[in-house]
Amino acid sequence: MMSARFHTTYQVRCPASEIEARAQGIAVEQSVEMPLPAIEDARVLADIVGQVAGIADLGDGGFEVKIALAIETVGADAGQMLNMILGNSSMHACVSLVDVEIPPVFADVFGGPRHGLEGLRARLGAGRRPLTATAIKPQGMAVADLAALAHRLALGGLDFIKDDHSLADQAFSPFALRVPAIAEAVRRATAATGHPTRYVPMLSGDWGRMQAQLGLARDCGIDTVMMAPMLSGVASLQAIAREWPEMAVLAHPSMSGAGQIAPDLLFGTLFRLWGADSVIFAHHGGRFGLSAAMCARLFARALAPLHGLRVSLPTPAGGMELARVPELLDFFGRDVMLLIGGSLLLARERIPLEGAAFQRAVENYFA
Amino acid sequence: MMSARFHTTYQVRCPASEIEARAQGIAVEQSVEMPLPAIEDARVLADIVGQVAGIADLGDGGFEVKIALAIETVGADAGQMLNMILGNSSMHACVSLVDVEIPPVFADVFGGPRHGLEGLRARLGAGRRPLTATAIKPQGMAVADLAALAHRLALGGLDFIKDDHSLADQAFSPFALRVPAIAEAVRRATAATGHPTRYVPMLSGDWGRMQAQLGLARDCGIDTVMMAPMLSGVASLQAIAREWPEMAVLAHPSMSGAGQIAPDLLFGTLFRLWGADSVIFAHHGGRFGLSAAMCARLFARALAPLHGLRVSLPTPAGGMELARVPELLDFFGRDVMLLIGGSLLLARERIPLEGAAFQRAVENYFA
Repeated sequence: MMSARFHTTYQVRCPASEIEARAQGIAVEQSVEMPLPAIEDARVLADIVGQVAGIADLGDGGFEVKIALAIETVGADAGQMLNMILGNSSMHACVSLVDVEIPPVFADVFGGPRHGLEGLRARLGAGRRPLTATAIKPQGMAVADLAALAHRLALGGLDFIKDDHSLADQAFSPFALRVPAIAEAVRRATAATGHPTRYVPMLSGDWGRMQAQLGLARDCGIDTVMMAPMLSGVASLQAIAREWPEMAVLAHPSMSGAGQIAPDLLFGTLFRLWGADSVIFAHHGGRFGLSAAMCARLFARALAPLHGLRVSLPTPAGGMELARVPELLDFFGRDVMLLIGGSLLLARERIPLEGAAFQRAVENYFA
Repeated sequence: MMSARFHTTYQVRCPASEIEARAQGIAVEQSVEMPLPAIEDARVLADIVGQVAGIADLGDGGFEVKIALAIETVGADAGQMLNMILGNSSMHACVSLVDVEIPPVFADVFGGPRHGLEGLRARLGAGRRPLTATAIKPQGMAVADLAALAHRLALGGLDFIKDDHSLADQAFSPFALRVPAIAEAVRRATAATGHPTRYVPMLSGDWGRMQAQLGLARDCGIDTVMMAPMLSGVASLQAIAREWPEMAVLAHPSMSGAGQIAPDLLFGTLFRLWGADSVIFAHHGGRFGLSAAMCARLFARALAPLHGLRVSLPTPAGGMELARVPELLDFFGRDVMLLIGGSLLLARERIPLEGAAFQRAVENYFA
């Protein structure tokens, strides 16, 4: 009997004369990583060694290689899944990972978002509309100044106000001082606006430190956090979903690389599978180079049916501006969160007004 | 007064007409990530915003860009350091990180290897000789078979016998069953050989699970573990060095990428700074594409004086063979560990003999 397998798909650049050997090399590297004649165990040869399932010529020296890996090599750990689907092969510049088949057992094991788009909307009483988010920055400001900025942003009635991803636990704004102060500042603003704006602190450090941060955040009445899976380890993303299911989690793209894992796959499928309620990605036309087509595919993956998993809220970012709201909503539709950070902060003392204009523009677009 | 800064160096590919803007873009992205006119805090503008410290034309559309970042933005977390030195800029395919200045305060904060080359040699009574290592694989074997293989390998009198990096916590060989069984098998062999061979289990999962694994390993008499910093999060590497200082740690290169962080910098300097006692890297002439010059630089960095930090044992691997031992030792000299995995396993029932030949070849080369 064949063991259960799942397919991984790579794009490989090499001379046509080498592609069969390269494909077989990936199959071995991503499974047993040793010469096959050294394997004495017949079950391992039959059930564990990766198999080349297909090679397609894409032209111009590019090939698409499909490998069948054994599901049982992944176990129940997101880090080990990443180890098996790319891991050592990440050291080959000519190899990128473009697709991973998600068998139902992976959905059972990892569970996907615990809240997802609909859970976040329900908390905000947002009906079926798109959501808004902004960021508190720059790092280096004192805690009181960060809190004052958060207060101004929250007066605009935005949905989510997140820490900049650079806010870790530095001396200028330690987590244990920053988070209660900002949470309180946002609470004061929401008492004035009547809108249940969420403050979203950034988690950093190892999982032990993250858990202390999660506890402190919960004690401040916070129910949403942010972390960067490729920086902190995807196992930490999985651990939040598993061990802190009441917390929603926004996944930040820091250290996600320049496409060695295709962004649509990484953000739209893998982060979602591992538990991200929202995936922040660098949208086309901002400071980063993703194509509009790639962003559309990422968006579609985050929302596509996947063994009953909740959908992950796509959150385009990375240099968006208020003037682009209609274009962005035309492109993505309702099921999106628009994250506008720096350009909103340019309004300085008019931040509450600009924030309110952003919120109104998004709320009214499909109304 | 200027705040204290450290330099990061990037290679950037772009038209010459764009390099100044790109350099300034990196300086902003890796510090405040927002339009400078939006910053109201004079101290942040003076002390926190990254500064372009130099641009050199490398020819052929390549440039070297030096950025001065504020030390205080790093704090005391290895993950946050990675966030600041590459983080968001990892999403630019045209940007790679090639050097990071390590000011003394980083050495104080991170502490480097707790054992390093000399600590590992002392445990093994290895004098000034090079060390040897091999790997237990393939994954998919039952625990008893993995233990029997480890026993055969240990009978050869090798220094380190490590789990393959694919051995996580899968159902076919759960950590809690595998590690005690292999530790016992290696102990039986060392009683026969008289050589204090170390068994090195692979850690996986979030830091909470890693700590449970560390505890179980310690209870089995194990004093050396392996983990993959770029897979599990560099903060977990730092956490082992900080919270389990009696444990030596081998850093595995899974998910280290194809040079967006230059391997000499990543393995020779950063992993060392963050606490790796040994750095396993894919050596020239094996299955991966590193140049001999890059491997030589990596080696030199791992051993170079760095504010009094212990040196990290360079461990070339990735398709090495017994026949290459003289060449490898000629290339690296004494201060190295040779890791030969798959090719040693080809010996099958002659593994103890081949292992002993490997050990003798290394022990005698400089004797």
